[in-house]
Amino acid sequence: MLTQTRLRHDLTSLETDEMTMRSDDALPSVKEILAAESIVVVGASEDQSKFGGRLFRMLLRHRFKGRIYPVSSSRKELFGVPTYPTVAELPEAPALAVILVPRDAALATVQACVEKGAKGVIVVTAQFSDAGPEGAEIERQMVEIARKGRARLWGPNCLGIISPAKRLVLNSSLALDVDHLVQSPVGFVSQSGALMATLFDKARRRGFGFSHMISVGNQADLELCDFVDFLLDDPDTEVICTYVEGLQDPARFRAVAAKACAKGKPWLMLKSGRTEAGAQAAFSHTASLAGSFRAFEAVCEEHGIVLVDDQDAMQMLAACLVRYRNRPFRHLAVMSPSGGSAALACDRLSEAGIPLAQFDAETDRALKTVLGAPSAGNPVDFSASSPGVVGKAMELVARDGAADAALCLITTAPVLDQTCAAIADSAGRDFPTLFVIHPGESADTARAALVDRQVPYFDSFDDAIRVLKGWHAIGRCKPARASQDDERPAGLTHVTWPAGEALGEFETKAVLESYGIPVNRGSVAKDAEQAVRISAGLIFPVVVKVVSSDIVHKSDVGGVILDLPDAAAVGDAVRSMQARVRKVMPDAVIDGYLVQEMVGGGTEFIVGVNFDRDFGPMIVVGVGGVLVELLDDVAVASAPVSPTRAAEMLGSLKAAKLLQGIRGRAPLDVGALSKLVSRVSWLASDHRDRLVELDVNPVLVRSNGGGCVAVDGRALLRDLPAPKLNVNV
Amino acid sequence: MLTQTRLRHDLTSLETDEMTMRSDDALPSVKEILAAESIVVVGASEDQSKFGGRLFRMLLRHRFKGRIYPVSSSRKELFGVPTYPTVAELPEAPALAVILVPRDAALATVQACVEKGAKGVIVVTAQFSDAGPEGAEIERQMVEIARKGRARLWGPNCLGIISPAKRLVLNSSLALDVDHLVQSPVGFVSQSGALMATLFDKARRRGFGFSHMISVGNQADLELCDFVDFLLDDPDTEVICTYVEGLQDPARFRAVAAKACAKGKPWLMLKSGRTEAGAQAAFSHTASLAGSFRAFEAVCEEHGIVLVDDQDAMQMLAACLVRYRNRPFRHLAVMSPSGGSAALACDRLSEAGIPLAQFDAETDRALKTVLGAPSAGNPVDFSASSPGVVGKAMELVARDGAADAALCLITTAPVLDQTCAAIADSAGRDFPTLFVIHPGESADTARAALVDRQVPYFDSFDDAIRVLKGWHAIGRCKPARASQDDERPAGLTHVTWPAGEALGEFETKAVLESYGIPVNRGSVAKDAEQAVRISAGLIFPVVVKVVSSDIVHKSDVGGVILDLPDAAAVGDAVRSMQARVRKVMPDAVIDGYLVQEMVGGGTEFIVGVNFDRDFGPMIVVGVGGVLVELLDDVAVASAPVSPTRAAEMLGSLKAAKLLQGIRGRAPLDVGALSKLVSRVSWLASDHRDRLVELDVNPVLVRSNGGGCVAVDGRALLRDLPAPKLNVNV
Repeated sequence: MLTQTRLRHDLTSLETDEMTMRSDDALPSVKEILAAESIVVVGASEDQSKFGGRLFRMLLRHRFKGRIYPVSSSRKELFGVPTYPTVAELPEAPALAVILVPRDAALATVQACVEKGAKGVIVVTAQFSDAGPEGAEIERQMVEIARKGRARLWGPNCLGIISPAKRLVLNSSLALDVDHLVQSPVGFVSQSGALMATLFDKARRRGFGFSHMISVGNQADLELCDFVDFLLDDPDTEVICTYVEGLQDPARFRAVAAKACAKGKPWLMLKSGRTEAGAQAAFSHTASLAGSFRAFEAVCEEHGIVLVDDQDAMQMLAACLVRYRNRPFRHLAVMSPSGGSAALACDRLSEAGIPLAQFDAETDRALKTVLGAPSAGNPVDFSASSPGVVGKAMELVARDGAADAALCLITTAPVLDQTCAAIADSAGRDFPTLFVIHPGESADTARAALVDRQVPYFDSFDDAIRVLKGWHAIGRCKPARASQDDERPAGLTHVTWPAGEALGEFETKAVLESYGIPVNRGSVAKDAEQAVRISAGLIFPVVVKVVSSDIVHKSDVGGVILDLPDAAAVGDAVRSMQARVRKVMPDAVIDGYLVQEMVGGGTEFIVGVNFDRDFGPMIVVGVGGVLVELLDDVAVASAPVSPTRAAEMLGSLKAAKLLQGIRGRAPLDVGALSKLVSRVSWLASDHRDRLVELDVNPVLVRSNGGGCVAVDGRALLRDLPAPKLNVNV
Repeated sequence: MLTQTRLRHDLTSLETDEMTMRSDDALPSVKEILAAESIVVVGASEDQSKFGGRLFRMLLRHRFKGRIYPVSSSRKELFGVPTYPTVAELPEAPALAVILVPRDAALATVQACVEKGAKGVIVVTAQFSDAGPEGAEIERQMVEIARKGRARLWGPNCLGIISPAKRLVLNSSLALDVDHLVQSPVGFVSQSGALMATLFDKARRRGFGFSHMISVGNQADLELCDFVDFLLDDPDTEVICTYVEGLQDPARFRAVAAKACAKGKPWLMLKSGRTEAGAQAAFSHTASLAGSFRAFEAVCEEHGIVLVDDQDAMQMLAACLVRYRNRPFRHLAVMSPSGGSAALACDRLSEAGIPLAQFDAETDRALKTVLGAPSAGNPVDFSASSPGVVGKAMELVARDGAADAALCLITTAPVLDQTCAAIADSAGRDFPTLFVIHPGESADTARAALVDRQVPYFDSFDDAIRVLKGWHAIGRCKPARASQDDERPAGLTHVTWPAGEALGEFETKAVLESYGIPVNRGSVAKDAEQAVRISAGLIFPVVVKVVSSDIVHKSDVGGVILDLPDAAAVGDAVRSMQARVRKVMPDAVIDGYLVQEMVGGGTEFIVGVNFDRDFGPMIVVGVGGVLVELLDDVAVASAPVSPTRAAEMLGSLKAAKLLQGIRGRAPLDVGALSKLVSRVSWLASDHRDRLVELDVNPVLVRSNGGGCVAVDGRALLRDLPAPKLNVNV
């Protein structure tokens, strides 16, 4: 299938209709559509080289309980099921229609199905908005037809559904050519159809399945969040997995995420486009630091959605959560017959930040006795012990209580199946035992023993690490967005920005100051004489900086002179700066010279705002100075944030040690910096219709009690689009 | 098996014998031992629950071509092979003996075998130096017996050998219960026996094998490097894989690594203990930055050994190198029927630093036509195209020339086996096509098609990434250690250190200066009056620092005062410092006050030396200042290094951008810093018998042409052990 990052077509013409329909709530829900008792398949055949032939056979093979109507102009029956020459001739209104006809016939077929009374129309056929503007126009018409007929469109360019829970398969993959669909309470909604059947097949080998797997295709009408919303209410689904390339409706996404959080159903997210090079021209540091994936990541974190970067790991983590009922995982026991495997595993667990449990001394002693080993502890090296002995060791580990889960690393040995069974059985049903099965064929009986017991196993250590990391994150996760984040600080008034697009230090700091953010005092002079006069009202030493909208990085052109001890030096500095800038950048228009008090000491931080096209204003914090770009160490959250949340953001930085006071230095004034971050975030929130980027850089943070001060700033303002029209609520 | 990190026993009593033997070269080599035409198995049985029963059956099952003598006191024959009641009664001197008797009988059995004339004695029995001092003593005696009889001991606590090349299996794993041993020109030497059979089994499923797999056990006599040395000369081996926990003989390791380099045989290294917490008390920053794994990593890099962190990936990389004859890999083509898979893959390839190839515009056009797609390029999304079409696309990619390899991401689709076969066949035998097979069972026919063609496939994307990263590293790798690294700079004399263990700034900088390293001028004063006199001879501003071996971090106790503008200020500074230090650390003995010229400007770097117990003095460089500990960004190499090599080290830092001049700043004086690093490395090399740690921190580096200057320094000196006795050369 083509990547379904599609051209977004214009739905404004539907607005009026939609408002009407929303008010009388006439559109069928996904739940109603999936409760279909009759299905028409247009484009069905027996030909197994075709989508329509395979999909139709899979529907029959998995014994859908309702009535099935294949439409075929050439055949009287297909696999013994009588056909109808046209949709119009069906004996009843089909609840659900599946369309597999060629592209040119698709629009008319949608119309026929809607006219016949279908509530949902799945269009498998591709080459619409995924293929260019011409296809996008046909797609728009399809949606219009569906809307007028009070039906929902699903797709086009989608691969339907695999629903073990409904015994409903509308998917053409040969991976479904199996006798039995394994059902597990895990729902999957995917922007890639190929991944869906692939994951079904991979999970099946491990003895796990899904409730419903849904391919969303181009999302012309029904979109990812509609299906997630359905899964949240679905009694057959406990964990939700999604594969997302881009969001159709970010506001809806947030709403559905909040619902998942409230319902306590874990949501695992696989997202492509993580490394997308931030193609936007970087006016500010902030924008280059806060790519669109970072905003997505921040919003997921705020709603307790766990991001994973691999589909298999996502499925396996879901399987673990289901199997062990969301039991939180914090500390791990490692067990292996191989000291070498255990040693390699411990290196990688340590790198991944997964902590090993420390057993009670009593447990260590008992393990030593049971295993007949010279020493014992975690990892548990059970060497060539018999299954009975290994089972006893597992009992001791489970009883100890320090570990919430055991990771068993299996290498070749005799009676591996019995060893694995003994571990799984001795641990008890609720104590998670995960297995990494390192050998190939010689361990297939062990794999089978685990599948029998519905115990998760991994063939590679990477999968285990990913699952444990994700599980650990769920264990620690509480939705980070608290109601206090939306409490406006007392006395904060909405201040308007001066005119202009790119604003320099002086204007930016004036706005910051009006938001109660400490800045160093100063004023702009036209020439050396005025600079000298201004300096008389300040405390020396002072700094002079050139003011020019043509100069982005002032220090690079000699446009910053520090540490001027007296008025005479200020005059000299302005004159020499003028000469130097004129030489280096003869075309730059100099608007003046900013004379301000020099702030000494403190550690540099950067605080900024970046407007994300999906999620609006994002607040960004990181260590400042020249190393900011080297470290690539920032925390991002959607604005506004409370000082408490700002402190959490600061604490999540790799450089958090700096704040606590590294190597005997005094801790920095985190309280003052957190308050500053919160106020900048309110500024961002107040100006979400115009503030594109804002850099407050550097903010100098002094040691505890010493406060912090914004020393430089710049902002980019433009009229910003209103949030996207929410078509599907 | 137990982790084979064993107590090292004392072999000094053997020194005299060994010297003799080395001089007449009478010890048999691994090659001679493995050429054995007769083997005695002591402890053989038919009991498949025992090591001896399984090992003996595997030896017979794989039809060893020589004569086999089982020794058994209770049975006349075993599996039809006549037995002998004792070793003494064998009809000939067996070339090779395998001992599986209980621990208490092992020593006498070794003696009997050696007396009968065995050249090599493999002791499978465990619980010797791996179990404590008592076992270590028996182990020592075994080696002594072997030496006296001009035999080599292999093990104890080892799992023997699996050698498809020699059709020699002396291993008890049931993974060997197969009809055919797959032979590939890949040798494996392992410090873990369990990993060996496990890897054999895993590789077999993918259609790959080994030449020889060797378990080294406790390495009482024959050690890892003896076997690697054998593989380097072995015509059946093209690539070498090792699993190492700790080295027996680091000097030998270096020698063998140099030989591998010279022979052009790639050596892949899996090492445990990577994250071992640097337990040594950190006198200097350098020591805490340069853990023992970093030294190991540096030495591997210097000799072109490629480190991997996963056994499966190691085997698969070896298989790729063999299959594609060490063809270098630089740029990748990605092919997939799934846009989603391709998108996820591109994210992870980008994170891993694996560059995608950019095809010629002509190739893009041709791909578009062949695939009937609206656009084409890398990644190649071949959607639901037929195998014939996919094969044509592959031909175009191979012919284009921009990519050295293709990574094909397979999701469920019809006729997957034909699609995979078409890709592999169209690429041609020498163009690497690697496959990630995402589905489970439904792709087993595709896996079989690839195994038939000896084309490597991966079941997880992680393995593919690891292999591509390793391959890329081999492609770029040239042994970094050049002869110029050993060329002593002209005019450099060996200077002795003053007495004492922990030396402070003044003494350390005196030694640095004598090595031609620029330091800032200054001298130590006893009191304020002397400080004022010293300052008269320096250029102001100056700095005063307290001198005390009791104070590790001077600035933390007010022991550093900067920027003193005149003599009066110097006097005041010393007096106030004295008062402050006395208050904060009343027990600290103050040796004086260092008065020195203040160095302004420049970017801080740290240069240091850490004595590694395996590899001797290592030179360490990184970005300095408070962020050094946050960044954890250092380069390590064994001393000495040439300025050229030092520049390469600096270029490998994450912070290398700083050196080139970040954001319009002038580039730093890399030449001066490289020269300084080289000179520090010679200092380290000259003092390898005493210099434990050295910090030159910070080194202030100015912009190009401005040089650099060492502003502070400290050193720890102690008598260091001579390099380990090399028992096995």
